Amino acid sequence: MNEEAYLQDYDKGAFEAPLLTVDAVLFTYHLDELKVLLVERSNHPEKGKWALPGGFVAEDTDKTLEDTVVRKLKEKTGVAPPYIEQLYTFGGAGRDKRGWSVTVCYTALIAHQACQSHIDTVSDVAWVNVARAEKMDLAFDHEKILRYARERLRQKALYSIVPAYALPKKFTLPELQRVHEAIIGKPLQKKSFRRRIEQADLLIDTGEKRSEGGRPATLYRMRAKSGDYTFVRNLEQ
Amino acid sequence: MNEEAYLQDYDKGAFEAPLLTVDAVLFTYHLDELKVLLVERSNHPEKGKWALPGGFVAEDTDKTLEDTVVRKLKEKTGVAPPYIEQLYTFGGAGRDKRGWSVTVCYTALIAHQACQSHIDTVSDVAWVNVARAEKMDLAFDHEKILRYARERLRQKALYSIVPAYALPKKFTLPELQRVHEAIIGKPLQKKSFRRRIEQADLLIDTGEKRSEGGRPATLYRMRAKSGDYTFVRNLEQ
Repeated sequence: MNEEAYLQDYDKGAFEAPLLTVDAVLFTYHLDELKVLLVERSNHPEKGKWALPGGFVAEDTDKTLEDTVVRKLKEKTGVAPPYIEQLYTFGGAGRDKRGWSVTVCYTALIAHQACQSHIDTVSDVAWVNVARAEKMDLAFDHEKILRYARERLRQKALYSIVPAYALPKKFTLPELQRVHEAIIGKPLQKKSFRRRIEQADLLIDTGEKRSEGGRPATLYRMRAKSGDYTFVRNLEQ
Repeated sequence: MNEEAYLQDYDKGAFEAPLLTVDAVLFTYHLDELKVLLVERSNHPEKGKWALPGGFVAEDTDKTLEDTVVRKLKEKTGVAPPYIEQLYTFGGAGRDKRGWSVTVCYTALIAHQACQSHIDTVSDVAWVNVARAEKMDLAFDHEKILRYARERLRQKALYSIVPAYALPKKFTLPELQRVHEAIIGKPLQKKSFRRRIEQADLLIDTGEKRSEGGRPATLYRMRAKSGDYTFVRNLEQ
C-alpha cells in the first residue's frame, strides 16, 4: 500500500485518543493587585466550579495551538492579549473524569482596561486576586497549573519587563515598578530599578506626561521585542 | 442530569480530536561528538524517513505523558534515560498528513555505553551526529523540533552540568569539559571551568582514578539534584 492509499483509508476515530484541550492563565494588574481570569463552568464535568479559560481545538478554524488559546481568550475578554507564551503541557490518566486527558497551557498578560468592559457583560467570567484564586477549589488540576504559571511569571518579573504587558500601552515608571513588585512580592529600590530599565533601553518616551502624586510623570511605551530582553542579574539585586 | 449520569453517557469517540503523540530528542556523547537517536519509520505516513523516537499514549498502561515517552525510549534503547525534561508542545493543522496533530516533546540525555548494545540489536535505530541529523530530511516537523531541542541543550550546557547525564556514571573533569564543549561549540578555559564546578560542589569524588593521557585523573559522580543547579554566570565567562 502506498502512502496515498494509506491516508485515504486512515480513520482517526478508530483509535482511542486522549482528550486534548488548551488552557490559559491570563494575568492582569488592577488596583495594586495581580489578578487571574477565571471562568465558572456551565457544563459537566466539574459544573459550577471555577476554572482557567480554555477548551477544545476547532480543527476547521484553528491552524495552531496558539490559535485555539487566542480564540478562547477572545471569547471571554473580547480581545487578544498582547503577550502569550506556552507554559507547560500537563497530561495523565487522572486529571479529568472523562478519561486520559492532556492540556497544553499558556501564560498570557493583558491590561485590565483593555477588556474590563467586555468582561462586565459576561456573567461567568471574573478577575480574581491570584492569592485568593490559589486557595479556591478550582476545576480539574487548575490550581496546580495556576501555581506553576504564577512561579514562571515571578521569574519573568525578576529578569524581564514582561510585566509591562499587564499595563495599558502607555505607562509611567512608577506604574511599571509597582506591577513588578506585585508579582515579585517585594519592594524594589526605585533608583536602581529605574537605572537598569533605562540602561537596557527598552522603553520609548511618548513625550506625554501624567500627574503622579502631584508631580508630572513621563509616559512610556515598550519598544518592539522589549519583552524578549533578559537581564543578566535579576531586578531585585 | 447530574455529573455521574453525564460521565456514564460520555463518548470520547463522538468528538473530532487531534492526533496526540509524544516525541523525544535523546542526546548522547560519543567519540567527541554530540549524537541524537533517530528511528527509521517502518509505517506510513513518511515511511522510510528517519524520525525522532515517539508514538501514541497507551491509555491503559501510561499514567502520565512522561510514562509514555519513557516507555517509547525503553523500547528503542532498552533502558530509561537518567535525565528527561519536557521541551515544548508543537501542534497544528499542517504537521501530519493524517490530520490536526499535536506532539508533546521531551529532551533526554543518556550515556552511550548504557544502551549501545541494545541499539546494536535493533535495525531501525541509530545514533546520528547532530549536525548531520539537522541536514537530513526528517519525518514531519522533526527537523524543527531537533533544532529547538539543540538550542535548549546549548543553554543548559552554558548554565548547568546537565551535560554530565550524557556520560557514564563515573567520569573525569576533562570528560565533563569535553561534553560541555561539544554542546556549546567552543573551547572552555580548563582552570576556570574546573574552579566553578568545584566551587558549586556538584560532584562527589569516587576515590577512584583513571589514566587520562598518561596522568591519573580522578573519577567523579554527580550529587543528587546536581542537574537542577543553575550557574548565575554562564560557564563560558
